[in-house]
Amino acid sequence: MYRSHNCGELRMEHVGQVITLAGWVAKRRDFGAMTFVDLRDRYGITQLSFNEAYNQDLLNMARGLGREFVIQITGTVTERSNKNPKIPTGDVEIIVESMNILNTSLTPPFTIEEETDGGDDIRMQYRYLDLRRDNVRQNLILRHQVAKHVRQYLDHLNFIEVETPVLIKSTPEGARDFVVPSRMNPGQFYALPQSPQTFKQLLMVSGFDRYYQIVKCFRDEDLRADRQPEFTQIDCEMSFVEQEDILNLYEGMIQHLFKEVKGVDIGTLPRMTFDEAMANYGNDKPDIRFEMTFKYLTDLVKGKGFPVFDAAECVLAICADNCASYTRKQLDELTEWVKRPQIGAKGLVYVFCNADGTYKSSVDKFYSQEDLKAWAEKCGAKAGDLLLLLSGNTAQVRKQMSELRLEMGQRLGYRDKSVFKALWVIDFPLLEQDEESGRWHAMHHPFTSPKPEDMDKLETDPGAIRANAYDMVINGVEVGGGSIRIHDKVLQGKMFKVLGFSEDEARYQFGFLMNAFEYGAPPHGGIAFGFDRLCSLFGGADGIRDFIAFPKNNQGRDMMIDAPSNLDQKQLDELSIGLKS
Amino acid sequence: MYRSHNCGELRMEHVGQVITLAGWVAKRRDFGAMTFVDLRDRYGITQLSFNEAYNQDLLNMARGLGREFVIQITGTVTERSNKNPKIPTGDVEIIVESMNILNTSLTPPFTIEEETDGGDDIRMQYRYLDLRRDNVRQNLILRHQVAKHVRQYLDHLNFIEVETPVLIKSTPEGARDFVVPSRMNPGQFYALPQSPQTFKQLLMVSGFDRYYQIVKCFRDEDLRADRQPEFTQIDCEMSFVEQEDILNLYEGMIQHLFKEVKGVDIGTLPRMTFDEAMANYGNDKPDIRFEMTFKYLTDLVKGKGFPVFDAAECVLAICADNCASYTRKQLDELTEWVKRPQIGAKGLVYVFCNADGTYKSSVDKFYSQEDLKAWAEKCGAKAGDLLLLLSGNTAQVRKQMSELRLEMGQRLGYRDKSVFKALWVIDFPLLEQDEESGRWHAMHHPFTSPKPEDMDKLETDPGAIRANAYDMVINGVEVGGGSIRIHDKVLQGKMFKVLGFSEDEARYQFGFLMNAFEYGAPPHGGIAFGFDRLCSLFGGADGIRDFIAFPKNNQGRDMMIDAPSNLDQKQLDELSIGLKS
Repeated sequence: MYRSHNCGELRMEHVGQVITLAGWVAKRRDFGAMTFVDLRDRYGITQLSFNEAYNQDLLNMARGLGREFVIQITGTVTERSNKNPKIPTGDVEIIVESMNILNTSLTPPFTIEEETDGGDDIRMQYRYLDLRRDNVRQNLILRHQVAKHVRQYLDHLNFIEVETPVLIKSTPEGARDFVVPSRMNPGQFYALPQSPQTFKQLLMVSGFDRYYQIVKCFRDEDLRADRQPEFTQIDCEMSFVEQEDILNLYEGMIQHLFKEVKGVDIGTLPRMTFDEAMANYGNDKPDIRFEMTFKYLTDLVKGKGFPVFDAAECVLAICADNCASYTRKQLDELTEWVKRPQIGAKGLVYVFCNADGTYKSSVDKFYSQEDLKAWAEKCGAKAGDLLLLLSGNTAQVRKQMSELRLEMGQRLGYRDKSVFKALWVIDFPLLEQDEESGRWHAMHHPFTSPKPEDMDKLETDPGAIRANAYDMVINGVEVGGGSIRIHDKVLQGKMFKVLGFSEDEARYQFGFLMNAFEYGAPPHGGIAFGFDRLCSLFGGADGIRDFIAFPKNNQGRDMMIDAPSNLDQKQLDELSIGLKS
Repeated sequence: MYRSHNCGELRMEHVGQVITLAGWVAKRRDFGAMTFVDLRDRYGITQLSFNEAYNQDLLNMARGLGREFVIQITGTVTERSNKNPKIPTGDVEIIVESMNILNTSLTPPFTIEEETDGGDDIRMQYRYLDLRRDNVRQNLILRHQVAKHVRQYLDHLNFIEVETPVLIKSTPEGARDFVVPSRMNPGQFYALPQSPQTFKQLLMVSGFDRYYQIVKCFRDEDLRADRQPEFTQIDCEMSFVEQEDILNLYEGMIQHLFKEVKGVDIGTLPRMTFDEAMANYGNDKPDIRFEMTFKYLTDLVKGKGFPVFDAAECVLAICADNCASYTRKQLDELTEWVKRPQIGAKGLVYVFCNADGTYKSSVDKFYSQEDLKAWAEKCGAKAGDLLLLLSGNTAQVRKQMSELRLEMGQRLGYRDKSVFKALWVIDFPLLEQDEESGRWHAMHHPFTSPKPEDMDKLETDPGAIRANAYDMVINGVEVGGGSIRIHDKVLQGKMFKVLGFSEDEARYQFGFLMNAFEYGAPPHGGIAFGFDRLCSLFGGADGIRDFIAFPKNNQGRDMMIDAPSNLDQKQLDELSIGLKS
């Protein structure tokens, strides 16, 4: 060992001990006869003290230390005259008696501090230096903790972690696969799994009963800001269970994680149907850290001569607490905000609920004080509040209002990242219809089971069939989702028919699963959590990138290792493939 | 929940309780007025009893149950008149009161029993049925246990599990990479990692200090019987440590695993240098469950007129205890065995150490009783033993004798799979020379650090330089290996030169690691364990295949899902690649 202690553990109780530390030079401060060095390792920072009174040679050597040099020192732990209450080791310093420079360093291209001066690109290119920053390292330690407690919880409940294969079979349905040419089977390709879905169902057929895996998955999609081509899932499946069992078990898991990792009691998870979520929040992943739920004013606003509302299928309001003080400028800005193409509203109607009990709105021309009072009452608004109204086609206006609600929540500080509110959204529709082709798609996936009581709608009203499908939502983020699967081959056959798969297509794509289902498939269901997303949520961050050790950029490139890259012709030849120009 | 208990837990204490079970019909036995069904799930087997005296309808229904039907039953736990001491639930049976057939099953293509009638191919094609067999399932449960205890041990020691990327950069050096065409970067490819070697070293540069990962790795090699294109490693790295620290820590890990998983105290691991291993066992992964070490008779046998020995560089003997009773036929067969091309010996010389103190050898024509006695003494042979001698070039004869030693150990029952003997092999040579090209290769990998005291041989005698490299060997199987890495860029430069890399080549292949080393790399080292192999060893098996849920065959095919497979032209076009005919 190059050290007797680490840089985070020395305290007053160690004073007088001769110890050895090793780490990186975080900072050097030179004074007349003295030099102080902050020595950093994964565990913390310890101050080293060099003084010409003790040892002139060592002082000179210390003054040659650059940032990020790796050194090993031996010295005596001493009480500091000038204590630093900001760091755990701040009561002591080390009077250095010998020093060994283990490695030098070029000057890093950015400062290794929480608030670095490095931009995203340079941080990614030098990710190995970026990872020295305490906050980034803490993110990965958090990730490790979350994984550990997931395993602890599931292991304790008799789950078995089973590794499913990475080199599997490509299916043209769904998102795009990454593929791997097979040298030994020329012209053929493996695919990387988008999820272990079929394998976990096969494990249920095998009798594995309670399976989980923290597993890498792959999707060759055009990357949005916060998507990665490789991502990690907590993938779970159980047999002989009903939806209720799964909800309870994973509610327990998230409670366990919050308790162990964050010291937070997240409480019982409310359950909200998909229909309720859409009606009250315009969103199947509602952020319930704050209320501001949708109020339907459609009936109240009609027939008063305001053509926009008269023509609207739906008129929605939200009530922003204590915002009657908004200026004209703020409201104009908000109106512009909802009219941006990303939101797409035609305009914004507002009503001030004044302190004196009067109302002032942008549609005073059409509506009396009595009218506005009725609106305010319907919205539960009190004096000092602001009503914001949008109108239009129900689906569209819900979507727009959802955005506005989240924006107002943000502006009003209701979306505190240190507050966590989780819920289950249940009773998702089984199918959704493609607007152009009119074809029905599985909302979750084609193995999701319909609710038995809705099955009679399969021929008549497929869109009304609810599924035994559920999402876990925390702070407006879908962290997990799953379903009870179809284990009956007759029902599965019907589903494929509704989804427009011919028997051949179904057999080609899911043949091995359908074969397996001929041999005694048990009732089963499961759930998968987005592990990167869950970690970033625990870490109070918006993006997942800093919760992944070596992430890729939006072009799918690893800037540090410069991948992907060209292959030798020899490699291409061996794989029996060629490049198209 | 479809059940109140599982099929492995009911005991005498449950007698009288009404319970619900769900599982698979393992066996049905019909008698006059009764039918017994063995109901199986992951946890065990419970006997169900149907009797016309209780319920004729249920009995009829039971008689319609086929093998592997999935059923749910409710009934009363009752003491069995005919107890089965072979299974934990054998004291009780369930008098079934109601039954629900959850799913039917086709007749499986092989029996779902420990000793199945299914051959390898059919088992792999129907792996989901094969996994229902208790022994195969137990293998995967064992695998889960080993992983769990690895994590437990390393977590406890402050290791952090960090996920390294799967889509990385191809390097033409080393084994062949699997590659992944990038759609977004046309003409470019990712590679799948053969190991996270460079990433774990980068994590050390990042200050991550104690890293591990149980991780999938990939190698596109022509598959030998027991190789898989994707395999799992326990990958570890530490900073500020010396070889001694690593050996101690992972010796602790293997002791922990054997204790927790097998209940075995594997004791302290002896350390053997590579030179000792080669000299005494002819093998750098000696099976030390038995002695039978090599004795060098070269000096004793020369000059007595036996031309073969006189011409030999090396004459080696092993002593097989109590084998003087071997028949002529047995020895002829053994002689044929060593002459097979896989072994390649020219012949086998033997000496019986007779009970009466005389000797009888195949070379009596050349050697006196005195001569043979001297050999026997050198070999520590006692009356009743058999000496087996091989001769030739030292390296070759060691290799041949190693095979013969293992074969004799096998025949004599010394290689008991329930006995575990582990050791460290240390002081490996840093370099090995390619016989044809004369070029030096890194024996471990190009970042392995030489022993400082051997560094003066770098220019003069590279083959004599020992490395800070080590393997853990259990029962003749290399289960893990690692090294202290070079953290100094000057030394690394010298190494690349010896290995014949130009500066450009080194930079192209390892540029990002070499760049990282410019910024304060700490001293570090690590080890990686073959997880599949370790599990099969714990399971007392020869092959790894049954310790992998969904393995591939020797052509790299997954027989169950039929991968790899052809791609659509559209997929190829999107990836900007074409097939070569």
